[in-house]
Amino acid sequence: MDPDALAALVRELADRRAIEDGVICYAHALDSRDYARLRECIAPDARVHYGRSGWLDGVDAAAQYCARALDPLDRSQHRVGTVDVKLDGDRAASTAYVCAEHVRDGRRFTVGGRYLDRWARTPAGWRIVQRELVVDWTDGDPEALRPPRA
Amino acid sequence: MDPDALAALVRELADRRAIEDGVICYAHALDSRDYARLRECIAPDARVHYGRSGWLDGVDAAAQYCARALDPLDRSQHRVGTVDVKLDGDRAASTAYVCAEHVRDGRRFTVGGRYLDRWARTPAGWRIVQRELVVDWTDGDPEALRPPRA
Amino acid sequence: MDPDALAALVRELADRRAIEDGVICYAHALDSRDYARLRECIAPDARVHYGRSGWLDGVDAAAQYCARALDPLDRSQHRVGTVDVKLDGDRAASTAYVCAEHVRDGRRFTVGGRYLDRWARTPAGWRIVQRELVVDWTDGDPEALRPPRA
Repeated sequence: MDPDALAALVRELADRRAIEDGVICYAHALDSRDYARLRECIAPDARVHYGRSGWLDGVDAAAQYCARALDPLDRSQHRVGTVDVKLDGDRAASTAYVCAEHVRDGRRFTVGGRYLDRWARTPAGWRIVQRELVVDWTDGDPEALRPPRA
Repeated sequence: MDPDALAALVRELADRRAIEDGVICYAHALDSRDYARLRECIAPDARVHYGRSGWLDGVDAAAQYCARALDPLDRSQHRVGTVDVKLDGDRAASTAYVCAEHVRDGRRFTVGGRYLDRWARTPAGWRIVQRELVVDWTDGDPEALRPPRA
Repeated sequence: MDPDALAALVRELADRRAIEDGVICYAHALDSRDYARLRECIAPDARVHYGRSGWLDGVDAAAQYCARALDPLDRSQHRVGTVDVKLDGDRAASTAYVCAEHVRDGRRFTVGGRYLDRWARTPAGWRIVQRELVVDWTDGDPEALRPPRA
């Protein structure tokens, strides 16, 4: 392989790895309630859509929405994978499958779906600039996700 | 690292990435009913075995079988991962875990198993030349997978 | 990219790949009851903690514990993924999500949790030196995991 081709291949592998890592980072940030870490994977002005939420503008709005949904839970687990990535220079699109468990008071509610993400290469690395969750199926007790009454 | 060792390592990383991407591509092709995309991951003359199907010869037979099973569904989600890859020059073998959801009319049937894949490096890239699905467990309502009566 | 930066990037990609492969190797070793293969991913003197097990010292103790739990089963499937890796020279830490199915006599018990792993780069490659399983949720019939009475 000539040096330029080698460097191009390494860059592509690194880009794909960074995008998959971003999807993983997002999941761990949510499940560890470490919302500050969302800034490692989504852009400050990212737009995020979680179905009932409508479009949320910016990482703070996204973090607040997630905190409201997840903080009352005993535990959550966003298993992500099967990430289909399409690179296009400094932009990318990916579809990641998610199977998310929400556990509260012995109840469990599972959401299966897809994260449709759009990415930009920024000086700080690859960041999600748009995320849309499409729900494909659910299972279990939706009460697990309802906040307890005050 | 000397240049040859570096190039060899990059090639190995790229090969493993391509094989994992092929497994992912197959899953997304099925779930988006984009059977034409199967040609991006399996060879034209690949042999595929889905249990009750017996051996199917060629990508068209595989696509037809999948279409018959999946087209009647409202939704499917083939989550793949935990891909164990063994490279051997221009050949490879992989075992990928799958957890496949099949949703129709509010019913859901889940199949857990393994894709045992054999691969060849072709001019167009790595392609599956043989795929066998081994079912390890199932859950839910098998009626979800039965085609509705005419 | 200058040659040193390129080599460093390749090394990082290879390290991350090796760590993810180690997590995958562990899962396949368990599910295929090929406990000898554990030596490909965990260090001889690794410490492992499976909740009720307390700390187990060394790969043999870990293998024996797993064999006692898994050999009576008809089937198991440790789906791992969403692996969050932190590299630090010749050390690393990772958190991997696991969804483990245990099947016996038509019963199924599912364990969802996290593998908290610590890694060392050894002459033979990256190896787990400490693994702790944290269980986040369970589902199904725990009897599946109880050994049949003699």
